Amino acid sequence: NRRLYGYTGATLAKWSITICIGVLVGLIAYVIESSQEFLVTEKKSFAQKTVEGSLILSFLGFAGFSVLLILISSCLVLFWAPPAAGGGVTLVMAYLNGNDIPDFFKLSTLITKIIGTICSISSGLLVGQEAPMVHIGAAIASAMTWMHGSLPSDKDASTKSSRSCWNAKATNFDFYNDKDRREFISAGAAAGLAAAFGAPIGGVLYSLEEASSFWSKKVMWRSLLCCTCATMVLASINEWQFSMALPGSMAFRQLKPGFRIRDLPLFAVTSVFAGVLGAFVNIVHDRVDRLRPAATRKFSRLLEVCGITVISVAVMYLLPLALGSCLQVPEGPLPDGKMDEKYWLRYKCSKGEYNDLATLLFSLPRKSMQQLYNMQGVKHQFPTADLAIHTGSVLFLFIIAYGTATPGGIFMPSMLAGASFGACMGTIFQAIFPGENIQPGLHAIVGSTAMLGGVFRASISLVVIMVEGTGGIDFILPIIVAIVVSNWVAHHIYHAGAYEADLERLGGVYFMHSEPPHQLAALTASDIMSPNVICFHEVVPVREVLEVLRNTRHNGFPVLRHPSVDNSGAGEKFVGLVLRHQLLLLLEEGLFSEVDSSRQQHRFSLYEKPIPKQMLILEHSMRAYHHYHHPHRRFLSSRPQEVARIEAELATKRNLAEADMAPDKKTKKVVALDLRPFMNRAPLTVRRECSAQRVYVIFRTLGLRHLCVTDSHNRVIGIITRKDIAMAQKQGFQKKSLQHWDSDI
Amino acid sequence: NRRLYGYTGATLAKWSITICIGVLVGLIAYVIESSQEFLVTEKKSFAQKTVEGSLILSFLGFAGFSVLLILISSCLVLFWAPPAAGGGVTLVMAYLNGNDIPDFFKLSTLITKIIGTICSISSGLLVGQEAPMVHIGAAIASAMTWMHGSLPSDKDASTKSSRSCWNAKATNFDFYNDKDRREFISAGAAAGLAAAFGAPIGGVLYSLEEASSFWSKKVMWRSLLCCTCATMVLASINEWQFSMALPGSMAFRQLKPGFRIRDLPLFAVTSVFAGVLGAFVNIVHDRVDRLRPAATRKFSRLLEVCGITVISVAVMYLLPLALGSCLQVPEGPLPDGKMDEKYWLRYKCSKGEYNDLATLLFSLPRKSMQQLYNMQGVKHQFPTADLAIHTGSVLFLFIIAYGTATPGGIFMPSMLAGASFGACMGTIFQAIFPGENIQPGLHAIVGSTAMLGGVFRASISLVVIMVEGTGGIDFILPIIVAIVVSNWVAHHIYHAGAYEADLERLGGVYFMHSEPPHQLAALTASDIMSPNVICFHEVVPVREVLEVLRNTRHNGFPVLRHPSVDNSGAGEKFVGLVLRHQLLLLLEEGLFSEVDSSRQQHRFSLYEKPIPKQMLILEHSMRAYHHYHHPHRRFLSSRPQEVARIEAELATKRNLAEADMAPDKKTKKVVALDLRPFMNRAPLTVRRECSAQRVYVIFRTLGLRHLCVTDSHNRVIGIITRKDIAMAQKQGFQKKSLQHWDSDI
Repeated sequence: NRRLYGYTGATLAKWSITICIGVLVGLIAYVIESSQEFLVTEKKSFAQKTVEGSLILSFLGFAGFSVLLILISSCLVLFWAPPAAGGGVTLVMAYLNGNDIPDFFKLSTLITKIIGTICSISSGLLVGQEAPMVHIGAAIASAMTWMHGSLPSDKDASTKSSRSCWNAKATNFDFYNDKDRREFISAGAAAGLAAAFGAPIGGVLYSLEEASSFWSKKVMWRSLLCCTCATMVLASINEWQFSMALPGSMAFRQLKPGFRIRDLPLFAVTSVFAGVLGAFVNIVHDRVDRLRPAATRKFSRLLEVCGITVISVAVMYLLPLALGSCLQVPEGPLPDGKMDEKYWLRYKCSKGEYNDLATLLFSLPRKSMQQLYNMQGVKHQFPTADLAIHTGSVLFLFIIAYGTATPGGIFMPSMLAGASFGACMGTIFQAIFPGENIQPGLHAIVGSTAMLGGVFRASISLVVIMVEGTGGIDFILPIIVAIVVSNWVAHHIYHAGAYEADLERLGGVYFMHSEPPHQLAALTASDIMSPNVICFHEVVPVREVLEVLRNTRHNGFPVLRHPSVDNSGAGEKFVGLVLRHQLLLLLEEGLFSEVDSSRQQHRFSLYEKPIPKQMLILEHSMRAYHHYHHPHRRFLSSRPQEVARIEAELATKRNLAEADMAPDKKTKKVVALDLRPFMNRAPLTVRRECSAQRVYVIFRTLGLRHLCVTDSHNRVIGIITRKDIAMAQKQGFQKKSLQHWDSDI
Repeated sequence: NRRLYGYTGATLAKWSITICIGVLVGLIAYVIESSQEFLVTEKKSFAQKTVEGSLILSFLGFAGFSVLLILISSCLVLFWAPPAAGGGVTLVMAYLNGNDIPDFFKLSTLITKIIGTICSISSGLLVGQEAPMVHIGAAIASAMTWMHGSLPSDKDASTKSSRSCWNAKATNFDFYNDKDRREFISAGAAAGLAAAFGAPIGGVLYSLEEASSFWSKKVMWRSLLCCTCATMVLASINEWQFSMALPGSMAFRQLKPGFRIRDLPLFAVTSVFAGVLGAFVNIVHDRVDRLRPAATRKFSRLLEVCGITVISVAVMYLLPLALGSCLQVPEGPLPDGKMDEKYWLRYKCSKGEYNDLATLLFSLPRKSMQQLYNMQGVKHQFPTADLAIHTGSVLFLFIIAYGTATPGGIFMPSMLAGASFGACMGTIFQAIFPGENIQPGLHAIVGSTAMLGGVFRASISLVVIMVEGTGGIDFILPIIVAIVVSNWVAHHIYHAGAYEADLERLGGVYFMHSEPPHQLAALTASDIMSPNVICFHEVVPVREVLEVLRNTRHNGFPVLRHPSVDNSGAGEKFVGLVLRHQLLLLLEEGLFSEVDSSRQQHRFSLYEKPIPKQMLILEHSMRAYHHYHHPHRRFLSSRPQEVARIEAELATKRNLAEADMAPDKKTKKVVALDLRPFMNRAPLTVRRECSAQRVYVIFRTLGLRHLCVTDSHNRVIGIITRKDIAMAQKQGFQKKSLQHWDSDI
C-alpha cells in the first residue's frame, strides 16, 4: 500500500505543507535579514556623517534612534506577546519534549518575534537572529497544522464550520494529532536554522541534535525537504538581487588557505581557551540572570532593556574613538567578491584609512565575522590589542543583552566573540612563531567553533553548520578538533550548555533528557509514583465524574473493574485508562445510560450503541477535541472553566442539573457513563519493583503521559506522570513559582 | 558525579579504546588502499607493455594473474571464514538491531575480509571497499571489547586468568555488556566508512542513518571521535607520503564551477534517470541472486567467482580495443595537482593520445570518478557514446560481481556507474542546449549521488559523504536535489533499498525497522504471542530445570508464584523473569537448597545466602557469562552441549546425578533452586488486548528480547520474542532454510 496508486491525499497534503513551510521560512528569513541590513547600513552612514561634527548631538541622535527601535520590540513583547522574548529554542525543545507552553505558537507571538528580531538587532543590542528563526520556523509549522478538514457527516454543517479554524470542508484529513504536529514543528525549526545560515544539512542536524526529542527517518526526510526549500528560496532571491550578499550565508569563496596536520596542536590551544570562555559565558549568564527584574515587573523590564541598549550603543560609538586604530584600507575586492565602500568605516580616521574597532562594532555580526575569517596577514590585519578589546566588549555586550525582554538569541554573538578571540590568538601565535605560516583567519574559524561548542555543547550539527556557513570544507578537521576539545574542556568547568541551563532554570517545564538522571538511580517505581490515584469503575455515575473533573486537574484516570463483576475476590483489577478530554466529550455529547444503583454494578443497561458512522464522528471528535476548542493549548481541558461550561450546558440543554443526577429514590436508577467502549484497554503498566531509571527510559522513549504502577495482583497502586518524575529529580515543576508567563497549566 | 574528580577509570578506558579503534581503522584503510593502488598500477603497466605484442598471450597473462588473486580471496572466504563474503553492512545492521550473527566478528573473518578485499578489488572484479571497511571497522571495535578486567576476588587467580581472553588483571572493568559493545561497534562502523571516504561527518551520519538501530548522544560523540581519529591518521600519512593521493579521498580542489538555480531542472532530470537506474539495479540483483549456486556448494561458488573474474577482465581488456576512442592527452597537471604519466592509458593509441575506455576501465573506480567529475569541456572530454558504453559495462560488471563468494561492496561501483551515466547525460544536454554553459562534471556528481540514492535510499548521510568526498560544498543544493528526487523515483519502482532487500532475503535474521510493519495493523498481542509458555515457580527442583534446559532452546522463562503462597486463589501470578544463562550459572555454581516436596511450596529452607562479596562476584559472572565461555557468540548458551556439560559437571563434582535429584523417599526432600534473588522482579508486560503495532514499537524502542503477555488477573498467557514478531510478519526466521552460514542459533 506504499506504491504510487496507494497514495492518499493526506500524504500529498503533508508534503505540500512541508514545502510551504520551507518556502515561508525562507521568505521570512530574507525579510528579516534584508531589513536589518538596511537599517544597520543607514545607522552606519549616519554615524559616519555626524561623527565629524558635535559628538554629543550625534551620539544622542544615534542612541535615540536605537532606543526607539528597542522600544517597539520590547513593548510588543511585554504588553502583547510575552512568550516571544529571548531566543525561544529552549521552549521549542521543551514543547517537542512533551511540555505545554501556553501561547507559544500563537500568531501574536509569531508577529512579535519577526518584528522584534528586526528591531532589536538593528537597535545595536548584541543579539542574534538564529534562535528566533528557529522559533519562527516552528511557529509557522504549527500554524500550518491548524489546517484540517471535516469528516463527511450528517450533522449540520454550520456547527462544523464554526469549529474549524481554516474551513477546508473538501478534504478529510487532520494534522492536529501530536505526532504529526511534532514532525512538522521539528521540520520547521530545522528550516529556521537552515535559512539563518544557508545551511540545509546543518539545519537538519541541529533539529536532530538539539531541538527535537523524538526522531525518525520520516522526520529526517521532512526536515531535509523543508530545509532545502528554505535554502533554495534564499539562493534564488540572491541570484535575482545581485546587489546583496546571500542573506544568512557567510560564504567566503576566495579564502582557501591550506592547513597542515602539525598546526592542529595550535588549533587545539585556541579551542581550549575558547571552550573555557564558552563555559565562562554560561556561568556569568546564570549569575546575571538572577539579578534581572522579575517577569511581572513589566516597566522595570522595559527600563532595563532601554538602559542596556544605551550602554551597547555607547560602547559601540565611543570605544572606537577612544581605543580604535586607523588602518590602511586594503586594495582589491572584498571577501564576497564585491567592491563596497561602506564596508570599511572611516570614522574619524583620515581618508583611505578605516577605524578597525568601528568597522567591527558597527557592522552586522555576520559581516564582522567575514572580516575576521578573512584575516590572512596578506589582505588585512587587525592588531592584537584591538582584537582583545573587541573580544572583551563583545562578551560584555552579549551577556548583558541575553535575557532581556526582547527577541534575540546568542548563537551569532557567541560566534563573533569566538572569532574575535581566535583571531587574537592567531596574531599572538604569529608573534611567537614568526617562521610558521600561521593564519589568524583560520584561528578565527576555530575560535568561533570552539566558542559555540563551549556555550551549546553540541557536536556534529555545529561542525556541519560551520562548514556549510563558511564553505570551508577544507578545514573540517580543525573544526572537528575545535568541537571535541571545547566540549571536553567546557564540560569540566560548567556542567550544562546554554540550553540545558535555561531548561533547568525554567519553572513549570520539565525536560526529559534521553539518559536517565542519576538522582533516580537507587529508587523504584513505588518511590516516585503518586499514590492514592483517583480511579473510575467501568460504569460510573455522571455525578461522580463531574465531581472529580471539577476538583482535580488530572489528565488520565485508571479504570477498574468493579469487584462484583469479577468473582475472583482479589480486589479491583486495573482494566483500562480514560483521558480527561474523553470524559469531557462524552459528557458534552451526552452518551449516558441509566443503571440501577442498588443492584450489582455489572447489571446495568447499556445506552443505545452509536451506529458506526456516529462512532466514526465521535472518534474523530475525540482526536480533534482540543483543536476545535482551543487551537493553541492542548492542555487546556484541565481548566476548571471547561468543566463549568459543560455542566451549565448539561443543565440547560439536557435538563440534567445536579439534583437530577442523584439516584432516583423510587427506582434507584442513576445516570451513568459507560467507559468501556472508549477507554484504552491495554495501557502500559510497570511493577512497583521496577527501577526508577527503567521507568524513566520507558516514559521517555515511548513518549508516555501516564504510566500506571501495579502490584502482582494487577491492582493500581499509583500513577507516574512527567510531574512525578520531575519531583523525584527535584527539578522543573518544583520551580513553578519562578515561571514567567502564566501559572495555569 | 560527572566532574573531573569523579571520573572512573572505565570512562577513560572507553575513550582510549575509541581512539585506538579509530587509529587502527585508519591504518587498515591505508593498507587496503595503497596495496590496491600498487597492484592495479602494476597490472596497468603490464597491460600497456604487452598489449602491443601477442594479444592472446598478453590477455592470458593478465587474466591468469587476476584469477590467482581472486582464488586467494575466495578460498579464504569459502574454506576459512564464510561470514566475510560480500559487503557485510547488512549483517552489521542486523547485529546492531539485536540479531545473532555467528562468527561475524571473529579474527579469521577480520583477516579474510582485509586480504580478500585487497585481492578481489585488484583482480578486476568490480566491487568496492566501502562496505568491507564498515565490517572491518565493526570487527575491530568488537575485538577491542574483548578486553576486560577481573573483579578483585578471593578465588584462585589461575581460574580467572584462564577465563579472560586478554589477561588484564590490574583493571576492574568489563565492556562485554550489550550496550557498550553496541556503542563501540556503531562507532567502528562509522570509522570504517569515514576512512574509506575521508569523510568524518559522513561516517557518523552513515552509522546513524543506516548501520545503527540504537542511537544516543553518547554514541554520536563516540562515533565522531572514532571517525576523526581514522581520518586524521589518513591525513597524516598523506602529508608524509607525498607520492600518493590521499587514500580514500576523492578531493579535487581545482574544480570550482558555479551552478545556477536555473540549472536545477536539468540536474533533476539526470537524477530521475539515475534513480530509475538505481531501482533497476536492485531489481536485477534480486533476480540474479536467485540463480547463484547455494552457499553449501563451495566448489560451484569458487568456479562462479573465477568465471565472473575472467568475464570482467575480458570486458576490461577487449572493450577498449573494440570500441575505445583515441583522444589527445590534455595539457597541464592532473586534477589532484600532480603530473602522472601512468594516469592516462595509451593502450594501442599513438603517442600523446590515450584510449578513453581503457583509461576509465583499468583505473581504480576512485580515479575514474575523478576523471568524470573533472569533465569541464575545457580540460578533457569523453564522447557520449563511449560514456554510454562505459555506463553499460560498469552496470553489467558490478551486478554480476555483487553476491559472489568474495568480500566487496557496491557503494563505489554504484557511484562509478552513476558518474558515468551523469557525465553521459551532461554531454547530451551540451548537445541539446549548446548556448547554456552545461558542465558534464557536475552532472557526473549529481548522477553519482542520485544513483546512490536509488540504490541505498539514504538521505543526509549520502549528501554529506558526497560533499566531504568531493570537497564540493558549493554544489550542495544540486546534491540534495539529486538525493530527494532519486529516492522519490526509486521508491515508486522498487520498494526496498539494497540493504533492506538483502535483509529480507536473509534467513535466520529478522530486522526490526523503526516503523511498525503494516502486517501487524489489525492484530493484538494475543494474536502474535507464543502461547503455552514454559514457566518456573519461584523455587524449582533442579531436576525440572535441567529437563527444561535440555529440551528447549528458550532464552527467558517467566517465574510464577505458587498458588499456595498467595491465598487469593486467583491462579499463578506472574512475578518475574529468569534468563537461561542465569539458570546455567546457578547450576554451575551449585547454589542449591533442599525443599520438602510433600509440603506447601512456600515452606522451603533457603540455601545459605552468599555474603556480599560472593554476591558481587556472582553478579559479575552473570553479566560476563557468555564472555567467559564463548567470546563470539552471545546466544550460544542455548546449545544443548552446554547443558550436557553442566550436567556432567554436576554429576562428577557435586555427586548429583539424575537419580539423586528425585525426591528422597524418606524425607521427601528435593534439591531445588531458589530463583527469587536472581530473577528480574519487574519485567515489562503487555495486556493481551494491546495492539500488535504498539507491541512492536515497545519491543523495538526499548530493545527487548522477551515480552510477557498477561491477562487482567496478571497470569502469563503468552510470550513474545523477535521470532514471534517475525512469524507474524512472515519474514526473517521463516526463511531459515536459506541461511548461509550455520543453522545453529
